[in-house]
Amino acid sequence: MSEFDPTEHPQRRFNPLNGQWVLVSPHRAKRPWQGQLETPKLPANVSHDPECYLCPGNLRINGERNPDYTQPFVFTNDFAALADNTPEYKNDDPLFGMHSVSGTSRVICFSADHSKTLPMLSEAELTQVIKVQAEQVQQLSKQYPWVQVFENKGQAMGCSNPHPHGQIWAVSELPNEAQAESLNQLDYLNKYRRSLLLDYVERELNAGQRLVISNDDWAVVVPWWATWPFETLILPRFGVGHLHQLTASQQLSLAVIIKSLMTRYDNLFQTSFPYSMGWHGTPFDGQDHPEWQLHAHIYPPLLRSASVRKFMVGYEMLAESQRDLTPEQAAERLRQQSEQHFQHPNS
Amino acid sequence: MSEFDPTEHPQRRFNPLNGQWVLVSPHRAKRPWQGQLETPKLPANVSHDPECYLCPGNLRINGERNPDYTQPFVFTNDFAALADNTPEYKNDDPLFGMHSVSGTSRVICFSADHSKTLPMLSEAELTQVIKVQAEQVQQLSKQYPWVQVFENKGQAMGCSNPHPHGQIWAVSELPNEAQAESLNQLDYLNKYRRSLLLDYVERELNAGQRLVISNDDWAVVVPWWATWPFETLILPRFGVGHLHQLTASQQLSLAVIIKSLMTRYDNLFQTSFPYSMGWHGTPFDGQDHPEWQLHAHIYPPLLRSASVRKFMVGYEMLAESQRDLTPEQAAERLRQQSEQHFQHPNS
Ligand SMILES: O=P(O)(O)O[C@H]1O[C@H](CO)[C@@H](O)[C@H](O)[C@H]1O
Ligand SMILES: O=P(O)(O)O[C@H]1O[C@H](CO)[C@@H](O)[C@H](O)[C@H]1O
Repeated sequence: MSEFDPTEHPQRRFNPLNGQWVLVSPHRAKRPWQGQLETPKLPANVSHDPECYLCPGNLRINGERNPDYTQPFVFTNDFAALADNTPEYKNDDPLFGMHSVSGTSRVICFSADHSKTLPMLSEAELTQVIKVQAEQVQQLSKQYPWVQVFENKGQAMGCSNPHPHGQIWAVSELPNEAQAESLNQLDYLNKYRRSLLLDYVERELNAGQRLVISNDDWAVVVPWWATWPFETLILPRFGVGHLHQLTASQQLSLAVIIKSLMTRYDNLFQTSFPYSMGWHGTPFDGQDHPEWQLHAHIYPPLLRSASVRKFMVGYEMLAESQRDLTPEQAAERLRQQSEQHFQHPNS
Repeated sequence: MSEFDPTEHPQRRFNPLNGQWVLVSPHRAKRPWQGQLETPKLPANVSHDPECYLCPGNLRINGERNPDYTQPFVFTNDFAALADNTPEYKNDDPLFGMHSVSGTSRVICFSADHSKTLPMLSEAELTQVIKVQAEQVQQLSKQYPWVQVFENKGQAMGCSNPHPHGQIWAVSELPNEAQAESLNQLDYLNKYRRSLLLDYVERELNAGQRLVISNDDWAVVVPWWATWPFETLILPRFGVGHLHQLTASQQLSLAVIIKSLMTRYDNLFQTSFPYSMGWHGTPFDGQDHPEWQLHAHIYPPLLRSASVRKFMVGYEMLAESQRDLTPEQAAERLRQQSEQHFQHPNS
């Protein structure tokens, strides 16, 4: 029998953050695709759309009018999935368990300009976005143990409006992923007396194969355990719990990294790259969390082109996530991309 | 403060099978949708398509020719995600864990007729499909601890060919979901000396609100912890480990239940309803598994119409699954549907 070759043979890789495995089938990348094609939408090319409920000065669905904002603008979602006045209820029946939840869902418009996406913002504008997200985390941390900052970009990721925006949901109980990441980071700290993600970023910087970009403060890798084809992880190279604890210079160096990463993504398939991305950081449950390290996950669906995506269906839903190209191959493709945007070379 | 009302207030419900929570936001069902619309594809209306690589007598991509089959037909996937001759490798590094995997991926054509979907098959034909799936489980159980029988239906679920077919993947290690369900069923058995799913089906039959259909052998419910809008669970009302242990009469009563469920699904939005569905049953690791009960999960993406689906993105990927309508509301909608197919009343 030949030797195991991770660039050829099926394998499972372990995600130490959430404790899940992913099935990697490198030989499968040759499979032809005859299924659904995405219809990529380029960003709008008007700076203000009178029909858009996120543009400055426009009327929203609930009848409120947006201010003439020029900086990132935050408001409570008109169809919030969470409400802050939920009556308390807790039933821990083993088969019919239910807890009431309080929380809030907010929308953050990244720019007043309807046509801009993150890679088209200047570093100063991106820093402003990070600042406002950090303020939101700080504010909501006083009331809720978990604050989820995220963005769904592109129709393929369920985004219903091209105006550049993200969301912030805060909840009264730790959601599944937060619980799993807490547990696993704590286990690692207890075992090795070091932070899981600080150890991890150091080893990735040394290895190099999964590294996409880095600067003095930050590194972006396609993680060892990536499930989505071009999934990445943004990791600080210093200990930090959540966004509001970044210094001004760390916010700026983060803006630089985000701009570079998002430009590479757009260049990869010469499209406005769809993704869901979001930040995980320390829970605000009144306890110390030396085990926790801030990080961002970026989950983009595209696999082979602007119109061919990966479907996480059947086997993935019933058994476990499966990927075709290896994380190392994906990282190489992203490393090769230019830092100049294919459509907006001067942005 | 008013009292907690689960039909109005946000809540989390617990899934005792896989240990995950789901966020339920009943008040959010009113949200308007301006995002991506699916383009529903009706099933083909030719019985034999010369271009289809699954039709009898046709050439497949790898150059093999399908036999002139008239019964469900099984072959090894031309682009299998798994291979049965993987060299052994195991590395349990806490940050870079990797195991090699052996396995196989097979395709099962449910019918020779290109235009048929499950609800259009007769009960006898459906019973044949179940029989062949059961034989596959029996055969593969000799070599692999986990045999995943599943179907992706519809373009929205990554299915690339309308010819009625499913898949069978067998693997040398228990995948994530299998591990979680094993653990939780075993915990329940140890605590309560009873089977989790036998207890659950009994309580659901008594409660009635989440029940869609039942007969002497089987019950279909929208589970208490459903994440997808019209997710269902097919549950046996008797103890059984996996498909190959069903008696002939239990196979037939299952065919009756599947036909009724799939007809209701198609009728709900007057479309060929997309979904991923699959069977979970006893692992074949040489041990006894008194805790395990056979069951099928059906995960359909549609939310409000043939063209508006639920997106599991952003918050769902980063924190936890979220649903709008309650499982009880979904069950009622499915209960109300006719058992006569809207397009094929005589099938
Ligand atoms: O095997 P298929 O039908 O080519 O592919 C489909 O099902 C597989 C198993 O659920 C998934 O991994 C693929 O993403 C999906 O497109
Ligand atoms: O809140 P939106 O943008 O209306 O909705 C989108 O993001 C939410 C949070 O990830 C998801 O629950 C929805 O399925 C998705 O369509």
